[in-house]
Amino acid sequence: MGLLVLKFGGTSVATIPAIENVANKVAAEIKNGHKVAVVVSAMAGVTNQLVAYCSEISQIFDQREYDAVVASGEQVTSGLLALALQKRGIPARSWMGWQVPITTDKVHGKARIQAIDSKTLKESVMSGDVAVIAGFQGITTDGRITTLGRGGSDTSAVAVAAALKADRCDIYTDVQGVYTADPRIVSHSRKIDKISYEEMLEMASVGAKVLQTRSVELAMKERVPVQVLSSFESAAGSDLPGTLVVDEDNIVEQEVVSGITHSRDEAKVTLRHLPDVPGVAAKVFSPLADAAINVDMIVQNLSPDHKNTDLTFTVPRADLPKTLEVLKAVSKELPGMRIESSADVAKISIIGIGMRSHVGVAQKMFRTLAEKGINIQVITTSEIKVSVLIPEAYTELAVRSLHTAYGLDDGS
Amino acid sequence: MGLLVLKFGGTSVATIPAIENVANKVAAEIKNGHKVAVVVSAMAGVTNQLVAYCSEISQIFDQREYDAVVASGEQVTSGLLALALQKRGIPARSWMGWQVPITTDKVHGKARIQAIDSKTLKESVMSGDVAVIAGFQGITTDGRITTLGRGGSDTSAVAVAAALKADRCDIYTDVQGVYTADPRIVSHSRKIDKISYEEMLEMASVGAKVLQTRSVELAMKERVPVQVLSSFESAAGSDLPGTLVVDEDNIVEQEVVSGITHSRDEAKVTLRHLPDVPGVAAKVFSPLADAAINVDMIVQNLSPDHKNTDLTFTVPRADLPKTLEVLKAVSKELPGMRIESSADVAKISIIGIGMRSHVGVAQKMFRTLAEKGINIQVITTSEIKVSVLIPEAYTELAVRSLHTAYGLDDGS
Repeated sequence: MGLLVLKFGGTSVATIPAIENVANKVAAEIKNGHKVAVVVSAMAGVTNQLVAYCSEISQIFDQREYDAVVASGEQVTSGLLALALQKRGIPARSWMGWQVPITTDKVHGKARIQAIDSKTLKESVMSGDVAVIAGFQGITTDGRITTLGRGGSDTSAVAVAAALKADRCDIYTDVQGVYTADPRIVSHSRKIDKISYEEMLEMASVGAKVLQTRSVELAMKERVPVQVLSSFESAAGSDLPGTLVVDEDNIVEQEVVSGITHSRDEAKVTLRHLPDVPGVAAKVFSPLADAAINVDMIVQNLSPDHKNTDLTFTVPRADLPKTLEVLKAVSKELPGMRIESSADVAKISIIGIGMRSHVGVAQKMFRTLAEKGINIQVITTSEIKVSVLIPEAYTELAVRSLHTAYGLDDGS
Repeated sequence: MGLLVLKFGGTSVATIPAIENVANKVAAEIKNGHKVAVVVSAMAGVTNQLVAYCSEISQIFDQREYDAVVASGEQVTSGLLALALQKRGIPARSWMGWQVPITTDKVHGKARIQAIDSKTLKESVMSGDVAVIAGFQGITTDGRITTLGRGGSDTSAVAVAAALKADRCDIYTDVQGVYTADPRIVSHSRKIDKISYEEMLEMASVGAKVLQTRSVELAMKERVPVQVLSSFESAAGSDLPGTLVVDEDNIVEQEVVSGITHSRDEAKVTLRHLPDVPGVAAKVFSPLADAAINVDMIVQNLSPDHKNTDLTFTVPRADLPKTLEVLKAVSKELPGMRIESSADVAKISIIGIGMRSHVGVAQKMFRTLAEKGINIQVITTSEIKVSVLIPEAYTELAVRSLHTAYGLDDGS
């Protein structure tokens, strides 16, 4: 018996029957003796429709009005789920962001939660009412509606769990948990039972789309145990059927590598014949930052003639045309510079806390890829992650080979 | 130059192009030098969809959650119209009921406005911002969302106009104003230029569906000049193209009869052989009131044998089956009672302030109908209205004949 925060995403509340299914899961937790707060997203498709309305009026819009429009989707689901719970005899009420209130900064469209006034909310939950909280939304100190950006309901849920000092935050989604690799590519991939915050954070940031990166950061900071599980399978209340994201101290058997991720959202840009003088990188990256283009992997090398440098980096594939436009303008100031680009790349990453204490983990990656004849174009590393850029055609081969090489295959 | 409140209903904001059209009308008023507050309904169809979601979950729902769900529709339109105005270079912001705040009582689903804290709103409007207010919604003193019932946005607009001490409240709708009779029935009907609050109130309550009855009551109480006009024709800013609802003192040439209305939403019930003793009417009408059935016209007569009474009354046609069910239960306590009913009736009303000072107005109605061979089943009167119940088949004939008889035909 404890206090749980359950979060249900858009596909979990896409229709009235889906909402009824969610109500059944909540009812099961109540029957298990738990106090429950629920955080809901908008019905799948609704947010896209609302965004499309805004865009139809104007491409450049006042983010405050955008937020007022888009936040309405979660308002609907929170009321509907409260009704579905009441039908089951469970006292429940909806809470909008402004009713809690969940206070955010004023960066409309991608606001950050600053404070949750949990007193009234907690009293309501402890009295036995299920609180059904509209995710994704908050309110500024001057009373305007904000939204937290795509996937923001995950962050709402973790923040509510932290504020209520909940025993666990269960993120219900359309997959059964976090996998050692994408099951659509690696049939032998396994659901991970426990993973550390640090690993989850790296995974979220390199292609595992199961949790919003910021929600993992917040869970790590506030030490909120998070479980990722499917809203479409297995009864609630069964013994942790999903993946538990926790402090690494709670993970007894540490794998060297916990998971392999891949991302096809990258494009590679190489600038050749850059003058090897201070300030060149700034000349390239400042205008890209101004254009809100997020540059990821960066490597710089002396060119073969040792007079100039070559600079390679990746950008989101969708931003490649804009990137090339910006660089064309830059090239006027850097005569001789040659721009090469390719959208034909994939980023493969291995992630694991065990890397810290094991040597040769990266080498095994390079050797495995080399044995399959896969050419590595760029390498970046962090303390618990190695990422490589390879030709996109080799994505599946690379992921499968690495999955086997690190002993992650089911049954291995 | 003054302060105007403009209200746009669901069909006026049904699509993004429709919202752009509304923005043009608002822009025209701004160009005329007016300060403007706008009240908007939900996009046509949206409220019905939201109500359907609630009903799909449960027929008996917590009105507080119903209100949270249903109020979201107006939130969307207020944000979208603010965006469309901004695109035209007009500073604008959306206001939800809770942001103003518009405080209501706690009768969720059909709440009444108790107070509008207009200070901040008025400051914003007087500074030149267009306030785009979500209609139909308010907030209780304990912070829950309420809605005002169907057509409630009219009432929102009039209440905002009263709170802001606006010079006029323009209700944009899909008709050009209030007509002497339904133009679909009487081709010679005329748009009324000015009508008194009292007449409008009677017309709204007997079938002219152009304004919510409560909004007229409020306008009359607060002396808010209201104009009804079309959002699809005539440029805003032209000289009062619609119907102006004002104090009768402002109407110079008073017609004896201002308009003829008809309603096919009635059904007639006759109870025969009721014992002629005190308390019988209560035995009949109390259970109907308990079943939330709104009884309208009532007449009681001694039966031919002078021992019993006959009781005739009308109920909304949609409620006839429920009415008969209730009466069947009642009949067990009133042995001998016979129930007759007919849905085949229409209520025709003549309305006019001039009736007060003219004699023979009702007689002319009865004579006109008699000349056409139309049998009158029930008559009720008020100070400025006479209503008769007739066989439904004669509806058009009755309305046209009366329209001619009272000199209302265009060109007459």
